[in-house]
Amino acid sequence: MEANANHLPNGEAAAAVLDSPTNPMVTPLLTDLYQYTMAYAYWKGGKHNDRAVFDLYFRRNPFGGEYTIFAGLEECIKFIANFKMNEGEISFIRQSLSGSCEDGFFDYLRELDCSEVEAYAIPEGSVVFPKVPLMRIEGPVAVVQLLETPLLNLVNFASLVATNAARHRFVAGKSKMLLEFGLRRAQGPDGAITASKYCYIGGFDATSNVAAGRLFGIPLRGTHSHAFVSSFMSPDEIIEKSLKSADGSTICEDFVSLVQTWLNKIKAVQWSKSSNGDTNHSELTAFTSYALAFPDNFLALVDTYDVMRSGIPNFCAVALALNDLGYKAGGIRLDSGDLAYLSSEARKFFQSIEKEFCIPGFGKTNITASNDLNEETLDALNKQGHEVDSYGIGTYLVTCYSQAALGCVFKLVEINGEPRIKLSEDVSKVSIPCKKRSYRLYGKEGYPLVDIMTRENEPIPKVGERILCRHPFNESKRAFVVPQKVDDLLKCYWPGTSGNFLAVLKMLEAGPVIRVRSGPSFSIHCFQAVNITKLDIVCFMEGKPRVELPSLNETRERCINQLEQMRPDHMRRLNPTPYKVSVSAKLYDFIHFLWLNEAPVGELQ
Amino acid sequence: MEANANHLPNGEAAAAVLDSPTNPMVTPLLTDLYQYTMAYAYWKGGKHNDRAVFDLYFRRNPFGGEYTIFAGLEECIKFIANFKMNEGEISFIRQSLSGSCEDGFFDYLRELDCSEVEAYAIPEGSVVFPKVPLMRIEGPVAVVQLLETPLLNLVNFASLVATNAARHRFVAGKSKMLLEFGLRRAQGPDGAITASKYCYIGGFDATSNVAAGRLFGIPLRGTHSHAFVSSFMSPDEIIEKSLKSADGSTICEDFVSLVQTWLNKIKAVQWSKSSNGDTNHSELTAFTSYALAFPDNFLALVDTYDVMRSGIPNFCAVALALNDLGYKAGGIRLDSGDLAYLSSEARKFFQSIEKEFCIPGFGKTNITASNDLNEETLDALNKQGHEVDSYGIGTYLVTCYSQAALGCVFKLVEINGEPRIKLSEDVSKVSIPCKKRSYRLYGKEGYPLVDIMTRENEPIPKVGERILCRHPFNESKRAFVVPQKVDDLLKCYWPGTSGNFLAVLKMLEAGPVIRVRSGPSFSIHCFQAVNITKLDIVCFMEGKPRVELPSLNETRERCINQLEQMRPDHMRRLNPTPYKVSVSAKLYDFIHFLWLNEAPVGELQ
Repeated sequence: MEANANHLPNGEAAAAVLDSPTNPMVTPLLTDLYQYTMAYAYWKGGKHNDRAVFDLYFRRNPFGGEYTIFAGLEECIKFIANFKMNEGEISFIRQSLSGSCEDGFFDYLRELDCSEVEAYAIPEGSVVFPKVPLMRIEGPVAVVQLLETPLLNLVNFASLVATNAARHRFVAGKSKMLLEFGLRRAQGPDGAITASKYCYIGGFDATSNVAAGRLFGIPLRGTHSHAFVSSFMSPDEIIEKSLKSADGSTICEDFVSLVQTWLNKIKAVQWSKSSNGDTNHSELTAFTSYALAFPDNFLALVDTYDVMRSGIPNFCAVALALNDLGYKAGGIRLDSGDLAYLSSEARKFFQSIEKEFCIPGFGKTNITASNDLNEETLDALNKQGHEVDSYGIGTYLVTCYSQAALGCVFKLVEINGEPRIKLSEDVSKVSIPCKKRSYRLYGKEGYPLVDIMTRENEPIPKVGERILCRHPFNESKRAFVVPQKVDDLLKCYWPGTSGNFLAVLKMLEAGPVIRVRSGPSFSIHCFQAVNITKLDIVCFMEGKPRVELPSLNETRERCINQLEQMRPDHMRRLNPTPYKVSVSAKLYDFIHFLWLNEAPVGELQ
Repeated sequence: MEANANHLPNGEAAAAVLDSPTNPMVTPLLTDLYQYTMAYAYWKGGKHNDRAVFDLYFRRNPFGGEYTIFAGLEECIKFIANFKMNEGEISFIRQSLSGSCEDGFFDYLRELDCSEVEAYAIPEGSVVFPKVPLMRIEGPVAVVQLLETPLLNLVNFASLVATNAARHRFVAGKSKMLLEFGLRRAQGPDGAITASKYCYIGGFDATSNVAAGRLFGIPLRGTHSHAFVSSFMSPDEIIEKSLKSADGSTICEDFVSLVQTWLNKIKAVQWSKSSNGDTNHSELTAFTSYALAFPDNFLALVDTYDVMRSGIPNFCAVALALNDLGYKAGGIRLDSGDLAYLSSEARKFFQSIEKEFCIPGFGKTNITASNDLNEETLDALNKQGHEVDSYGIGTYLVTCYSQAALGCVFKLVEINGEPRIKLSEDVSKVSIPCKKRSYRLYGKEGYPLVDIMTRENEPIPKVGERILCRHPFNESKRAFVVPQKVDDLLKCYWPGTSGNFLAVLKMLEAGPVIRVRSGPSFSIHCFQAVNITKLDIVCFMEGKPRVELPSLNETRERCINQLEQMRPDHMRRLNPTPYKVSVSAKLYDFIHFLWLNEAPVGELQ
């Protein structure tokens, strides 16, 4: 296992760079068993340090749309930075593999980290498209394969749910408040926590999930449930009835009576128009009790008994009593029934209260709607007309009910400098070979026009210079583009660690560099090309900095900005125009050369 | 906050009883914010220790079926047993609630645990039906509400995915090996780990997920990927070519040549019939290298280039070479194409090899199929005829693609001894009030006939005695049943802890018991009923033992046995017969009395 001799143990250094992944269950064991059987087979054959390049990408946009939000990168980089097996994990792998596996392999695992791995990626929160690599991972083939499953796991759902959130935002419109309420129906504890994080990135404003609020600093929202309302029986249950005014200047000794007085006034004016009876007492008691606890943030769920005949008048009575004491009520939540109708009726009620009792702004009281909302129901509400200000969305959002999985894959595109292609009878499943670069080209109107992949050594597309963009597999689809702006999509988020540099130094001291398989490819090429000094290496390393991971809010802003930048026809819900993804003429030719070379010639019988 | 004075801090004692939940992210913060706002409102109103009873149940079976597997209980009980907030968590709640919240509330949270909570449940792995409580949680209303969201989160997906697994097993048949391969496409890290655990309970045999294997002792399976195959270029890459025989008696110095010899023999016999060309060299090299690493467990993915013209003959060459050395090959995996056709062709090939070269058993070589399998594709394979022995199932299984969420709810059914009902315009959403008991009644043929819910104080249905079972909401649907066997469905999994007992003792010492709100209701009732001694209390506590949590394999066996016990027409995929869920005549009358009492009378205008 000589190829490993140059590798210095520096897991500690790596671990110091970045925090661990959010979920402590994300360890090197969170992978498929076959990654370890392959690692052993590679190691046994002396092939584990072969330098491999893998692309992580998806083949189809989700939800019938033509765009996807890339998310999960931060967790991937944290995972890579902290990739290190402990003794318990190694001993479990030993017991899971065949008893005949040699001890040396477990020594190898013990030293293994990602110091020789390089990770390139499109920035998290970007709008992305099929076939274009979201991440390119380079490194010793055995360790990069061990990363495959966890990286896919961390990217697949994160990107799916961020995209789902962006789609909900698109339908709801910019002015609405969007709240993620999915914790109870999500696919397990961090199905929920993951959803909260990436829905925020995708454009939601807040979550009900306290754990996610704490972990990521996402704003929290919540009021009370039906159970709270039905847990009250009668007004006698309220013992402490006094409430201090908002400015602290006075005390209302009997807030319960004040509420009742307001309810009577409302009844006198409003009630005769629409109802014959009393509002529900349990509900009124519950609202009053809640207002006593949260006078500065009184939000009420108004549909436990009957929205218009009980919930709304009860809410208004409490809100007006609070208003007497200088507090402004937060609003109502509707969780059942015809939300278009009820929100409009509630709005009218609030407006008439504003007018009747001269309470400026009361007509604008916030209305939140929940209850199994999704893209379709939001769209239907828009068409019917409604007065909802905020949406609480759960099940359909966080479980991505209309499409529960994104199909990201991780394909070998080069090994030891040799391009590799994965063939398939299904053309959409043929991989695009070679270590590549990708660019986004923008048109005159400022919209992104096309993404183009090139071979690594091709010149970068230049602003104002015509370039041929070809469909990777369809000969007849090609177009010239004169870009007005060019974005280089892949950034280096993990250049390996200083351990790399030490390994390079050690190789230099050891004499002439002859082995191409081990160590990072860039340093090897570098040695072979020039008469190198230690200083040069330092410069070289410094020339490939790690892009700092942005904050959650920066990622969210990127996402919102990128979505706004897209040409509207790519974004519409029904029959959106596909965004073009292309390859350079040179890469096109190479793909088809390799394809013909690898594919067997059939024989019809 | 005097009601809390009798409560002794005994989180340590509780924590010692059971391990924490599997995922360390499952903490008291994994809940909706409104559970904390409600807790504050309850506390502020002095109502937090009101004794409440909540039912956890679902309203509709998933996947268009007529049954569900209840899962997630063990994690729920571990969560309850370890429910305790640390200072960091409390300070985060303080900062998330309104600034006006009183300090006393946070002292209350600091002392809070589930020692006064009782949890009853149907055993995990049981076949269950809509409306029947899966869990009944009793305790102080504030703490039970805090449990609502995490319990729903832990039960919803666990039950959904266990049911999905059971449905896949049903279609695949008992004799097939079922492997869960979903890690990379699951909804986040423990979407995957959760799926691995509950698919095993639902009847799968193994997983590819190493972390799940380690956490739960689930058998692991895995071979190699397409990337492994395409990472090899030529046979020259194999440097170490020797292989010891299985019994260690001889060494084959050049295993690569032995494989080549076999490939030539196979070609001579088989090849002329079906092909004109060579098999793929990269593939043969990869297989050979993998066999050198795992001679006693050689499994090959045979569809990287061409299954019948390359993968199968290459596999057979390696398998026959291994056979010469006393090893038996593990089998092949097909990951694309027409699985019915390819598996049948592969079987014929194996059988002809068995015959041609007199290798007994070779015809039975294991064939595993993967590639986007689900219930429908398994069903289609069965109809077409196939030779698959094992299925590897991923995306559709673990994300529950055909229905990504189960709608369990948690409803207040009683508070301070008063039954509560939740009304809704949608009858299916009306809750069944009262603290209840539930039974499963079996018919003459041994099949479960009907589940019946009764009020708590009703007599237990007796074997051989006629009982009227009524549909809870449909007056005309009712039937007499003479049960041949009666199962009491709810068991006590958490009776509160010894802290309870200490609190009771302290109350006893403190003098006469007069407060009904605080402390566990059973002990209070107990004090009031009899002239009690400490010994009696011990007996009383011992009379309500906690059911021990079974092992994962016991739960899996329960699930498999219960599924086998069901009448076949409830289980079929298309148009299954609904299983009957009923209430006693007494409970029926009470539901409708309460309903009329609570529902407002409308007025048409």
